[in-house]
Amino acid sequence: MSSRTFTVSGMTCGHCATSVTEELTELPGVTDVQVSVDSGRVSVTSEQELSREAATAAITEAGYTITDWPSAN
Amino acid sequence: MSSRTFTVSGMTCGHCATSVTEELTELPGVTDVQVSVDSGRVSVTSEQELSREAATAAITEAGYTITDWPSAN
Repeated sequence: MSSRTFTVSGMTCGHCATSVTEELTELPGVTDVQVSVDSGRVSVTSEQELSREAATAAITEAGYTITDWPSAN
Repeated sequence: MSSRTFTVSGMTCGHCATSVTEELTELPGVTDVQVSVDSGRVSVTSEQELSREAATAAITEAGYTITDWPSAN
């Protein structure tokens, strides 16, 4: 198992959190997604390490932007 | 045809506008709904005059609150 926490900008409400969660959950191997609208922090647990490319694609599809992708968690 | 414009609080994004639009569109006789997230103004066009009770029920179902219901439009 692997876990990644990054920051997403633009989320304002629970609908936004739902959209982000849905897109990330569709990625292969993702087993859990936690989203904080207030802080913009998104944590993803997955079977393999989540790539920045896959996360970016999902967040972009949801209509938001990754603003911080820490190099190590 | 009748038109009503009122104010809804709590909408923060396009998802919120979609939820409000969907609930109001489900009311009998409603033919058009326009929502401005920025101002909170919601305009409903309907075959019969929209009652405050019906509007309140729809807005509450969507998760928001009517804060101003002008007595005349």
